[in-house]
Amino acid sequence: MRDWVGSCLAEKLAIMRERRPLIHHLTNYVTMNDCANMVLATGASPVMAHAPEEVAEMAAIAGALVLNVGTLTLPWIESMMIAGKAANQASVPVILDPVGAGATGLRTESCRRILEAVKVSVIRANAAEAAVLAGLDGEVKGVDAVSGDACAAARALARRFGVVAAVTGVVDYVSDGRQTMKIENGDAWMARLTGTGCMASSVTGCFCAVEKDPLVAATAALAFYGAAGEIAAGRSSLEEAGPTWPAPRGPMTFKTAFFDAVYRLAGERAAQLARVEAIGMVE
Amino acid sequence: MRDWVGSCLAEKLAIMRERRPLIHHLTNYVTMNDCANMVLATGASPVMAHAPEEVAEMAAIAGALVLNVGTLTLPWIESMMIAGKAANQASVPVILDPVGAGATGLRTESCRRILEAVKVSVIRANAAEAAVLAGLDGEVKGVDAVSGDACAAARALARRFGVVAAVTGVVDYVSDGRQTMKIENGDAWMARLTGTGCMASSVTGCFCAVEKDPLVAATAALAFYGAAGEIAAGRSSLEEAGPTWPAPRGPMTFKTAFFDAVYRLAGERAAQLARVEAIGMVE
Amino acid sequence: MRDWVGSCLAEKLAIMRERRPLIHHLTNYVTMNDCANMVLATGASPVMAHAPEEVAEMAAIAGALVLNVGTLTLPWIESMMIAGKAANQASVPVILDPVGAGATGLRTESCRRILEAVKVSVIRANAAEAAVLAGLDGEVKGVDAVSGDACAAARALARRFGVVAAVTGVVDYVSDGRQTMKIENGDAWMARLTGTGCMASSVTGCFCAVEKDPLVAATAALAFYGAAGEIAAGRSSLEEAGPTWPAPRGPMTFKTAFFDAVYRLAGERAAQLARVEAIGMVE
Repeated sequence: MRDWVGSCLAEKLAIMRERRPLIHHLTNYVTMNDCANMVLATGASPVMAHAPEEVAEMAAIAGALVLNVGTLTLPWIESMMIAGKAANQASVPVILDPVGAGATGLRTESCRRILEAVKVSVIRANAAEAAVLAGLDGEVKGVDAVSGDACAAARALARRFGVVAAVTGVVDYVSDGRQTMKIENGDAWMARLTGTGCMASSVTGCFCAVEKDPLVAATAALAFYGAAGEIAAGRSSLEEAGPTWPAPRGPMTFKTAFFDAVYRLAGERAAQLARVEAIGMVE
Repeated sequence: MRDWVGSCLAEKLAIMRERRPLIHHLTNYVTMNDCANMVLATGASPVMAHAPEEVAEMAAIAGALVLNVGTLTLPWIESMMIAGKAANQASVPVILDPVGAGATGLRTESCRRILEAVKVSVIRANAAEAAVLAGLDGEVKGVDAVSGDACAAARALARRFGVVAAVTGVVDYVSDGRQTMKIENGDAWMARLTGTGCMASSVTGCFCAVEKDPLVAATAALAFYGAAGEIAAGRSSLEEAGPTWPAPRGPMTFKTAFFDAVYRLAGERAAQLARVEAIGMVE
Repeated sequence: MRDWVGSCLAEKLAIMRERRPLIHHLTNYVTMNDCANMVLATGASPVMAHAPEEVAEMAAIAGALVLNVGTLTLPWIESMMIAGKAANQASVPVILDPVGAGATGLRTESCRRILEAVKVSVIRANAAEAAVLAGLDGEVKGVDAVSGDACAAARALARRFGVVAAVTGVVDYVSDGRQTMKIENGDAWMARLTGTGCMASSVTGCFCAVEKDPLVAATAALAFYGAAGEIAAGRSSLEEAGPTWPAPRGPMTFKTAFFDAVYRLAGERAAQLARVEAIGMVE
């Protein structure tokens, strides 16, 4: 199972870095700059555009479309639906990041409206957001805290909407409802920065632009992203025989190192660092 | 007088870092990312949300609400009033940052409207903004330049609106109109970055979420924040017997060090570094 | 020809850093924070404000107005036109950054509407955007890729709209339609970050606030900005006899060094590093 992830990392990342596909975002104000720089560091071209008059035109020429409801309003949701439908028509994969689903009615409801109107390839969420959208409301507490099973949430979410669900946390799970991948890359420093979830969705978009199977693309994206986090934290080395970077002094030295690691991490090395496991088919 | 500030720093910061209260922001586009990361580094959980349909719901579950008019528009001001009223009903403290009050009529007027409609706990401002809102217009020149007395502006602002006024500059003053605290922490590097005022308001929100007395909370917040600035500038040490960090090469190495210092600064050490003085009761 | 650029750098930068003129921006969400910090590092005072009720008031007291359509919507374009007209009335120079012109009809059309309604001093663009706006559509491919001659695009754009066109890329060209300056400062790391174009427009605004001739101001701005990029990349030294900084580990260490270099670069040293050439009059 690791084989096709490794091959996706090695081959598809190289293709991405050559083609530099356009990743069109309608995303939140808080992390737009980080998402743009993360897409550049990964190897693609970011564009942020949300005017209803232009989103269809932009989405149609993109390699992937990322919809993130972090600072949503009703007009932005309308623009997301226009962009999403245009992406669907042009066979451009759509990634949804349902930031804060469950925290307010507007967020939960808006995500459901998008999922009804637009064919989404991947939902990238945390376990609480995934559980709420999957209808497992009993397992969610507040906006950040979560009880319950991230793996179960990924499976349930995938089945409910017929998507690939990529649920990130200490361990990440990517599921299409039948097959589920467990990814154990990443580092605790990533949770001490705002936007590491948003950026994971953007990197997922980058891989979806070059890999047709969203289960493979999302798994490869999260393994790559997590491996870069380990390098930035000083736990893994950038090159097989190379030294590790110094441990971060705090969240901002980690952040600096994280973007640098993403930029410098080759697909072959990411494949070596990937800790990916297929945890069985269900049903 | 320093005793209760020191105790607030040591005890309340520890409580904050355990509970991680939600700090709901309606703030400006320019510094949203910095404010979110500053709240995380301090020890709380940031959320930015401004849709009129959800702000009341979000504010009601928050530990504090920060309203910042840096890139205001009329619809955002409306959302701020909805959020502020919901916070008042739920006894959630409200912090107002009147960015640019006095620079345009819209800013001055919008801040006054918010102060009429919402019970604000703390106004965190620079001396020019404070003087304008307090009605001491003669002492303000332009949007950044200030003549006049920051201490007098803090007192006058506190009295005029029945709030705690936290006026930051080379020296900070926190006043409830009767009692005024002088805080001499901080470093000149802080003024060479955008958003250090906005972030001071966010950190004030963090402390208000765990300390009921806004005079104590704002004083502790500014002493903590300024002490972290001194550490980042290489002037104070992070640990009592520890080495100082290297002097910044420029504003961005300072910024990186500043966030790292906030993240790593313990309440006990901040209390040691605090230069806080009660400068007497008036009336 | 280099003489007046060098003198502008040495004298006008010193004047800017003393006066700290207000640079009013209506710009995109993605790079607002970077533009604000870049203006501060260069030596001026940034303000971002877009409400239609206040932009005229703000623009009238500014040293320069920067209009950037990166995340445009129709209401923002309306605010840009109000601000631009107020700037014209107050003889405040206007800089336009037509981000993504040619990528969508809305962008191209909005830039043309601004150029009809507002007297713009400098258009700062990449070669693709410049070619589209100049009507040389055949030479543009996609949103980032460009074929064709940046120098020709600068000249054509300047003539078509009676402005100074500052077209940046591997080599920068600044033209008033008759006289064209070639600037060979800069480094490849600058293209690996989002916002280096936006920030170039902001720095152009800073220089336009202290130098009346927009051809001189834009040339000096781009030489200064590019020289700082070379220092950050470890290729030039900050002081004539000083050591070079270490090579960046990746885009974020470059970014940190870039802001620090802008902050620390004196006009005299920038004039030494400037590689500016007048490439002849045409017509």
